[in-house]
Amino acid sequence: MKPFLTTTLLAIGALGLASTALADLKPEEQIKYRQAGYSFMAWNMGKIKANLEGDYNAEQVAAAANAIAAIANSGMGALYGPGTDKNVGDVKTRLKPEFFANLEDVGVIAGNFVTASNQLAAVAAEGDQADVSNAFGEVGRACKACHDKYRAD
Amino acid sequence: MKPFLTTTLLAIGALGLASTALADLKPEEQIKYRQAGYSFMAWNMGKIKANLEGDYNAEQVAAAANAIAAIANSGMGALYGPGTDKNVGDVKTRLKPEFFANLEDVGVIAGNFVTASNQLAAVAAEGDQADVSNAFGEVGRACKACHDKYRAD
Repeated sequence: MKPFLTTTLLAIGALGLASTALADLKPEEQIKYRQAGYSFMAWNMGKIKANLEGDYNAEQVAAAANAIAAIANSGMGALYGPGTDKNVGDVKTRLKPEFFANLEDVGVIAGNFVTASNQLAAVAAEGDQADVSNAFGEVGRACKACHDKYRAD
Repeated sequence: MKPFLTTTLLAIGALGLASTALADLKPEEQIKYRQAGYSFMAWNMGKIKANLEGDYNAEQVAAAANAIAAIANSGMGALYGPGTDKNVGDVKTRLKPEFFANLEDVGVIAGNFVTASNQLAAVAAEGDQADVSNAFGEVGRACKACHDKYRAD
């Protein structure tokens, strides 16, 4: 796992600078891809929650945590280009315009999310259910930190 | 990486047996989550393709390959429950009914996809562009093998 500061700076970097590979994605494509990432993470968060509340399958939890961490580390900041805080045709977004006025804060929040996701993947690989429960809570709080500030209800 | 046979059997297992955690997902939710996974993998495949065709950023490619592999290993077979070969309201799917009549073949194809994805992640971490190009082609062929047989145009 990368140190917190490095992770945060990388997150800010990812937010500020879309790569050549992504420069030609339209706003509606960026919105769709980032929603796909969050949706797939939500499915995996749901699986982990169900495991913590029921029969615990360590292999399933580890796979779910790996998916969340890998998505979190995939550079999703590049999917927050200009214009992606507005609906485009039938592609809807709940991103608040405040997001773009607070990129430093967003970078810190994103860094926390990456750190928490990496921690969850690390403890899920070890298989201790109490550790997973704690790390899962941290990921949930990291998600909520952004939703509370930058996602419309 | 797991041996091929094990991976294939796991894939068949995942396809045949939804876990308790997932048993209560409605068909339309299963369709949405699996489409989210494929969409997010497509974004990452696009990034790798752009890197191979332009300036090669080994860190971005490794992160993209990790995301693809982690999604491939997350047990998506559980998102192919009964009824998910039909549109549900405004949730559309292109899955052909033939999928359910050929689960053994589907398991082999899914196993190939997991193996190819793991191989791509492994060589992407090493950073050799020629190896990545070959492994990327294998993943693309593994995707296409399923699309050709079980996805409607």
